[in-house]
Amino acid sequence: MGAEERTKRTHSAGLEKLLNPHTVAVIGASPKEDRIGGIILKELTRSHCLLYPVNPKYQALRGLRCYASVLDVPDRLDLAVITIPASGVPNVLEECGLKRIPYAIVVAGGFGETGEEGKRLQDRLVEIRYKYGIRILGPNTLGVFFPEQSFDTIFVEHGDKSLAGGGGTAVISQSGSVGIEALGLASNIGFGLRTFVGLGNKCDLDELDFLNYFAKEPGTRLIAFYLENINEGRQFLKACRTVSQDKPIVGLKAGRTASGASAVSSHTGRLAGMDLVVEGAFRQYGILRVQDDEELTDVCRALETCPLPQGNRVAVLSPAGGYGVICSDYIETPHSFTPLQMARLLPETEQRIRSVTLPFASCHNPVDITASASGEMYGQAMEAILQDPGVDILICLVFWSPPGIEDDLLDIIARRVKGSNKPVLVFTTYGPFTDRYLLEFWKRGVVGYSSIERTVRAARFLVERSMQLERFALEKSEAGARKEPSPPLQVSVSRPKRSIRRVVEQWLLNLKEPGKPDEYEAKDLLRRFGIPVPRGVRVPPFLSRGQDSGLYKMKEEAVKRGMKALLPKRFTFPAVVKVCGASFLHKTELGGVRIGVLKGELEAVLSDFQHRFPGAFLLVEEQVDFLPPELLVGGLEDPQFGMALILGAGGVLTEVYKDVTSRLCPLMVQEAERMLSELRIRPLFEGYRGLPFDRNGLVQLLVGVSELLAASEGVLSQVDLNPVVYSRERGWVVLDAKIVLCGIGSPGGSLR
Amino acid sequence: MGAEERTKRTHSAGLEKLLNPHTVAVIGASPKEDRIGGIILKELTRSHCLLYPVNPKYQALRGLRCYASVLDVPDRLDLAVITIPASGVPNVLEECGLKRIPYAIVVAGGFGETGEEGKRLQDRLVEIRYKYGIRILGPNTLGVFFPEQSFDTIFVEHGDKSLAGGGGTAVISQSGSVGIEALGLASNIGFGLRTFVGLGNKCDLDELDFLNYFAKEPGTRLIAFYLENINEGRQFLKACRTVSQDKPIVGLKAGRTASGASAVSSHTGRLAGMDLVVEGAFRQYGILRVQDDEELTDVCRALETCPLPQGNRVAVLSPAGGYGVICSDYIETPHSFTPLQMARLLPETEQRIRSVTLPFASCHNPVDITASASGEMYGQAMEAILQDPGVDILICLVFWSPPGIEDDLLDIIARRVKGSNKPVLVFTTYGPFTDRYLLEFWKRGVVGYSSIERTVRAARFLVERSMQLERFALEKSEAGARKEPSPPLQVSVSRPKRSIRRVVEQWLLNLKEPGKPDEYEAKDLLRRFGIPVPRGVRVPPFLSRGQDSGLYKMKEEAVKRGMKALLPKRFTFPAVVKVCGASFLHKTELGGVRIGVLKGELEAVLSDFQHRFPGAFLLVEEQVDFLPPELLVGGLEDPQFGMALILGAGGVLTEVYKDVTSRLCPLMVQEAERMLSELRIRPLFEGYRGLPFDRNGLVQLLVGVSELLAASEGVLSQVDLNPVVYSRERGWVVLDAKIVLCGIGSPGGSLR
Repeated sequence: MGAEERTKRTHSAGLEKLLNPHTVAVIGASPKEDRIGGIILKELTRSHCLLYPVNPKYQALRGLRCYASVLDVPDRLDLAVITIPASGVPNVLEECGLKRIPYAIVVAGGFGETGEEGKRLQDRLVEIRYKYGIRILGPNTLGVFFPEQSFDTIFVEHGDKSLAGGGGTAVISQSGSVGIEALGLASNIGFGLRTFVGLGNKCDLDELDFLNYFAKEPGTRLIAFYLENINEGRQFLKACRTVSQDKPIVGLKAGRTASGASAVSSHTGRLAGMDLVVEGAFRQYGILRVQDDEELTDVCRALETCPLPQGNRVAVLSPAGGYGVICSDYIETPHSFTPLQMARLLPETEQRIRSVTLPFASCHNPVDITASASGEMYGQAMEAILQDPGVDILICLVFWSPPGIEDDLLDIIARRVKGSNKPVLVFTTYGPFTDRYLLEFWKRGVVGYSSIERTVRAARFLVERSMQLERFALEKSEAGARKEPSPPLQVSVSRPKRSIRRVVEQWLLNLKEPGKPDEYEAKDLLRRFGIPVPRGVRVPPFLSRGQDSGLYKMKEEAVKRGMKALLPKRFTFPAVVKVCGASFLHKTELGGVRIGVLKGELEAVLSDFQHRFPGAFLLVEEQVDFLPPELLVGGLEDPQFGMALILGAGGVLTEVYKDVTSRLCPLMVQEAERMLSELRIRPLFEGYRGLPFDRNGLVQLLVGVSELLAASEGVLSQVDLNPVVYSRERGWVVLDAKIVLCGIGSPGGSLR
Repeated sequence: MGAEERTKRTHSAGLEKLLNPHTVAVIGASPKEDRIGGIILKELTRSHCLLYPVNPKYQALRGLRCYASVLDVPDRLDLAVITIPASGVPNVLEECGLKRIPYAIVVAGGFGETGEEGKRLQDRLVEIRYKYGIRILGPNTLGVFFPEQSFDTIFVEHGDKSLAGGGGTAVISQSGSVGIEALGLASNIGFGLRTFVGLGNKCDLDELDFLNYFAKEPGTRLIAFYLENINEGRQFLKACRTVSQDKPIVGLKAGRTASGASAVSSHTGRLAGMDLVVEGAFRQYGILRVQDDEELTDVCRALETCPLPQGNRVAVLSPAGGYGVICSDYIETPHSFTPLQMARLLPETEQRIRSVTLPFASCHNPVDITASASGEMYGQAMEAILQDPGVDILICLVFWSPPGIEDDLLDIIARRVKGSNKPVLVFTTYGPFTDRYLLEFWKRGVVGYSSIERTVRAARFLVERSMQLERFALEKSEAGARKEPSPPLQVSVSRPKRSIRRVVEQWLLNLKEPGKPDEYEAKDLLRRFGIPVPRGVRVPPFLSRGQDSGLYKMKEEAVKRGMKALLPKRFTFPAVVKVCGASFLHKTELGGVRIGVLKGELEAVLSDFQHRFPGAFLLVEEQVDFLPPELLVGGLEDPQFGMALILGAGGVLTEVYKDVTSRLCPLMVQEAERMLSELRIRPLFEGYRGLPFDRNGLVQLLVGVSELLAASEGVLSQVDLNPVVYSRERGWVVLDAKIVLCGIGSPGGSLR
């Protein structure tokens, strides 16, 4: 869909008539309760809408007059719910268009998801959509559910009737099942649903439309989505970033581990199978990512209900010591992005807990008030902990078997939760009654879970959201959205995109082998943008005696005259000699790399290489002495989101530890900084063992490379700078580089 | 408890009278239903036992004659349940002893867990136990629960009344709450409990007694435990290893992340905070480790019910595509020890599925038969998948909302599960009815979960158990339990423990600074056992002109005469010069290591070192050229389990990636092999990029070091060999070594 059409779409913004219509036609309405048209009609009679069943076979249905066509309906219609099978849909949709109905929900499957024929049918819907301006949800959608108005077009039985109105979570789900089943399960223990939308095949209305709508809809406090593919990746992400400043966005994207089979010719490419780009992009654009439906609903429950914590220090209150220890274990389990820590209670707090509990209670965090505790003790201990300034989050473990615990503990806890501006999460378990207690908590405004791990995970998301808002605030307070690094970039990429692209195109024209840059040429491109690479020269292959070629002959002689003629001015030894060409896999293991070559040895080494790699070009470079760590800086074009920058631990262990992170290009300085903090080798960036480390220089390099990548979209498909190292003399240097061009496919090469 | 006492204990093996008694005294019985003695008496009236209430205050209780003392009971008693408060327990226990009652359960808290006074009271119980031979469960225990006989001494309300008899899982729990609450939750969806035992303070009967009992008890098919500390660590583990050949053992040990504050002076020590030793020891001794109560019950349900898989290839059947993808993601998520893979279905299987499902079904794994499928289609697709020889495990995702799905799907699925020798696990969700459906499945012999992640996790444990049994079989088939490595060990540690210990003690006596071996001395100890270290010499500090000392003076002159006099014969250059002494932290960063020193440079380098590190000893060694990876081999004495061997990725990233694994010493060759396969850097052991790797040599080194460590228990507290590297010339060599002695404490040093 072009920019023009998108513009048209944003103009028809208000989806109220779709989600909360006054007048609705049910096309294909039926008296039979096992038919989709019957189920939906019955469901809608519970809503507050004026209903107009449409079916030429009937005069009346459920006491309502039934029409042969929407064109016969004497009222103006907000919405048509089309429940008939796929083949008949285009005709009735055309009638809806003629009737100037603004919205239609197409329930039937059998369209684009089923192959070529279905796709053609779906294309006809799109034609009608543009002919009449009618907006379509679906086809192949479960439709919408808006509990506040009892408006529900979902034809499958869903166990979420207990979802009361008043919740603030809008759920946008590409798969009907995942969304509906998840909500069904969640409603069991309470879930604050505002609206559910099943996207189906997204022939017209898609995630972006609903995101924009819910962003403004006053009853929506949080937006959750389940998506399998994203229509306009970059635009959707940008919208998310804007919306998440105000409302949290929780995202589930399926297909995490699906191996990116087409992108396996470089380190970076092989890492892509990890779903790295989606992970980084979500973080960059303010989406809180979850992995399954349970996590989605767990996180929504907490984010919608709890105040946000000021920090990550968690206290645990338990009447069962063992559970307290298990909970501490989860809290202290290392986490890359959102570590939690056990709060240290003040001596006064511990004293206060001691004074209100039994003598055997353990008043350190995790606080164990023992199974002999009463509800009142529980409440007083809660109060003491919540008032400790060293506590940001409280996790309450609640059991109903101790003799001193009665049901009034629900209210005792709820009172303390309401009285505090700190988040409290409850874990409770009580055999067959667990869910009932969780629901009772929920009704009292308290969020509970039946698993300790899930409780701790929810706490982590509260911290994550809190950090996100802090970051947004910081970025706003800095002048302009884009902070310039200081001192200014040494890498000179920062120039207009068009000018970068011109340099890249020029470079392309000069490749020795069209479309297949070798290491020397890859480094040459970097050099043109001021990205440091070792100084060096590429030596052409010698020719055997029998052959002849003016150019090569001459160079051969030059080599024989002594390398001095070829080497750049002031070249310093020792040198590194490498075999150079995309076809050499594992240069090191092949004996294709020789380090520490002294001036006097160079000719002999070159001669040896020429002998072992006949016909190969060679690279002679100044040797760079560097300090750990070795890094990987890569670029990768993602089909949904565009060019991504990868940063990771480099060298021989890159693929072993997969210690990598990514962001979409171009990169803000703040995001480059965050990338550094997301690697597990980050201690090496923070003066580990007294090693020097030029953090600012690395950030500059990343921003520079990301700008080169952003400008080269559609030209460069994979870039692999590995290792990138820090040298005391030269700062950050790219020691090895590989570039794969778009549409060229995998040369099967690797860097080391 | 000494060996003699332990012998006595094993003789009094049969715990039947405790767990399934005929005659039971309830001491402290009460008519009040809110008193412990009242609750337990009432509970026990439901059992098949003859009951004798004991309480001087009453004549009769619940229609039973009540006695003033157990001594008055006219029958022979199997068991006394003592429900009175702590202070009165010793007296009545003494009476039980006089009455020759073989078992007593002491319910009251207020003993060893509460401090010194309580500990004294508990010691009195132990005295009485040995005076009369009466065996005690507790004190501070919830007691036992044996559903088959409705025998239940648990006084707190537990939600597990629905735990029918007939299950095969024995649960041994140190914490009453964790055990009982976990079972309560599990019983909600079905759990096959055989017996529950709460250990309490373990003043007498402990985990080992019950392990041994359940190992032989015919109704027990699986043993699960929750423990906070283990009384006789090594003996318990050995018993587990024997039992697990026959019955699976699932273990939950709390305190995973508690930082080992006392052991932070070496790499190895700092890694101990990871709970590394417990993790490795459990794996070594056949215990399937879980992290919380939910995982414990989840895993027991699967292991008790399902046949074991032949491999790790998982197929997924779903009527909802999105859920299928989420499930595949969990299956393909990398896992260190038990990776799963998505099965590849045969073309015939896919064809068969296609023939029984709707045209839009996706017949690749994960198979998506769409929400339009019927129960019969589901069953036929199951059958096709289960008959595919490329499938080891089937995960069925089951939803109840599709219109074609009725409750008969329960039976359809159960029939296929029964008809197959492959494990089938079900994930199902249906709002408030989820648990009901899970229970219905359970009643039909089908194991189900309400979370995809937990379903996949259960599959992983089935594979893990299957691999465990394979390993046991392999070990048995090999001649003797202890396989000798072939070719025979080059490291000559393999000798009687006493002889090893003599060498260690001799070495101790010769340390330059008593109790604080330096690097040279640490390597010297290794050398004595044939563990390769670089050849080298320790150079004493020069003295300044003013001072004098015969020995040093002489050596100083020797140095000045030329290092040749000090260096070993045929010492080859280049050399490495290092400052040598436990007090030098981060030698490399201090400039305390110089590599590539040529013959002519040595004196100048030494002189420079002496200048920069006045008074320090220096180490001059032959430089070893090595290939990646660098490894860490360490030793660590664990307070519960004794000496453990650590193997990990070494070098500068050791503590960053914590890619380590451990086993208790000494090590069998098979276990050393397994350690290699547990590291994430294992690709480097398997011909990664064509690098040579002497796997057998490394295994020998590990076994050798483990024997040295095992013989040195109580002498060496931490050993840190890092890096250990492979050189083409010398094989495996320990480049740096550090040893900390027991009782010496932390010298605060580090290796590099």
